[in-house]
Amino acid sequence: MDEPVLLTGAGGRVGGAILDGLADDYDWRLLFHSEPAEEPAHEYLVGDVVDADLMREACQGVDAVVHLAGDPRPDAPWDSVLENNIHGTKVLYDAAIDAGVDRLVYASSNHAVGHFETERRPDLYRADDDFRLDGTELPQPGNFYGVSKAAGETLGRFYHDEYGVSVCNIRIGNLTEGHPPIDYERGQAMWLSHRDCAHLHDRALQAEYDREIVYGISDNDRKYYSLERAKDVLGYEPRDNSAHFDGEERVADDD
Amino acid sequence: MDEPVLLTGAGGRVGGAILDGLADDYDWRLLFHSEPAEEPAHEYLVGDVVDADLMREACQGVDAVVHLAGDPRPDAPWDSVLENNIHGTKVLYDAAIDAGVDRLVYASSNHAVGHFETERRPDLYRADDDFRLDGTELPQPGNFYGVSKAAGETLGRFYHDEYGVSVCNIRIGNLTEGHPPIDYERGQAMWLSHRDCAHLHDRALQAEYDREIVYGISDNDRKYYSLERAKDVLGYEPRDNSAHFDGEERVADDD
Repeated sequence: MDEPVLLTGAGGRVGGAILDGLADDYDWRLLFHSEPAEEPAHEYLVGDVVDADLMREACQGVDAVVHLAGDPRPDAPWDSVLENNIHGTKVLYDAAIDAGVDRLVYASSNHAVGHFETERRPDLYRADDDFRLDGTELPQPGNFYGVSKAAGETLGRFYHDEYGVSVCNIRIGNLTEGHPPIDYERGQAMWLSHRDCAHLHDRALQAEYDREIVYGISDNDRKYYSLERAKDVLGYEPRDNSAHFDGEERVADDD
Repeated sequence: MDEPVLLTGAGGRVGGAILDGLADDYDWRLLFHSEPAEEPAHEYLVGDVVDADLMREACQGVDAVVHLAGDPRPDAPWDSVLENNIHGTKVLYDAAIDAGVDRLVYASSNHAVGHFETERRPDLYRADDDFRLDGTELPQPGNFYGVSKAAGETLGRFYHDEYGVSVCNIRIGNLTEGHPPIDYERGQAMWLSHRDCAHLHDRALQAEYDREIVYGISDNDRKYYSLERAKDVLGYEPRDNSAHFDGEERVADDD
């Protein structure tokens, strides 16, 4: 990809993992919500995704957008996710379409399906439980943040159908650096390592697809999200597995 | 049901069909967006679903809510559906939960899945085509109005999961009075007669369920929406069929 790739939410945790892994692989244009503490290594803008003028500027000459920006708090209040996550996604996508962007990669979330867990906990998190969500299921959010992420997925579907842009909604699990959450079955079941996160977004920027909803986790023994679509359609090849860690120590490695 | 039933959007077309058919069957409390031209036969309020204070008043002592209010225009601009349809539904549902309402019946729309038609038209509208949407499919809206209706469905799912309230999302087809649309295959495929509309909402107020997404059409020969869930779960027994009309004339009747 020769043209710039716009990354919104560049100051967040997912953005950090992507930039760590793919810094030199794309001509990044970054959108920060507030002025970054350190001078970024890439072209950047500062502001809000609900700012239509700024989004027009951000999308100028861009081939693809990785859209991570928004209020990331699972307990974020409704007014904030309505404005920042739902409305903000619409404003950005409009600007992207106007600029001729042909690919939208969207950070959806495990919270879009968070209430699936309510009745099945804790079996769901065990390695011998074979229940899987595969991305074809209707959203079942566990909070307003999840409602907003589900709405963002639906917006993506609309922009794909209406304008032909490729859209990949990634329901991101539990991203932690270095090692999986300790003594936390749920976090281990939905763990996404930093390198798998970067690789998955790389695949979402490279593969051919129309519109997809995929789960973004490592290849954990414990899991209740299917990785089939991510593997089959995107060519995702996760390298990590929360079962390979004993606390902070890696005790096995398939590399 | 002895307690009042709140009907929002009472001045709209769906509201009219429901009140025509079920005027004496419930102790209605009506919400109009603007002062009605004629004095209603039922208790009523005038105002906006985004008005939290008014919604608290509207939900006081209510057992069930039939939520039809919102911007009904398929081509409504984003800002209006974001505010009136998405945010308004959240404000109303909060008030309903606070008031102890145990049932929410929501006017979703065929537009929540409007883009399913794009590639299959016009076979989809033919009586011999057996493709069916059944309510388990992900939303595929054809416009921002449809995006807002899909978001309303997701909100309903959240309130069910979070608070245990029964939620029935009805993807309403093409409601016309007297006879189906003429020379319009699509309209005939998704026709909902006034009496079937009233009956379907009656069933949604009476049947036992957790949360449902059903299609709201008559039992048309032409159709691409399944009526199975509505029949099986709600006990919906549609009496009309667009195939029984030759223009404005009823030429067959199974009654």
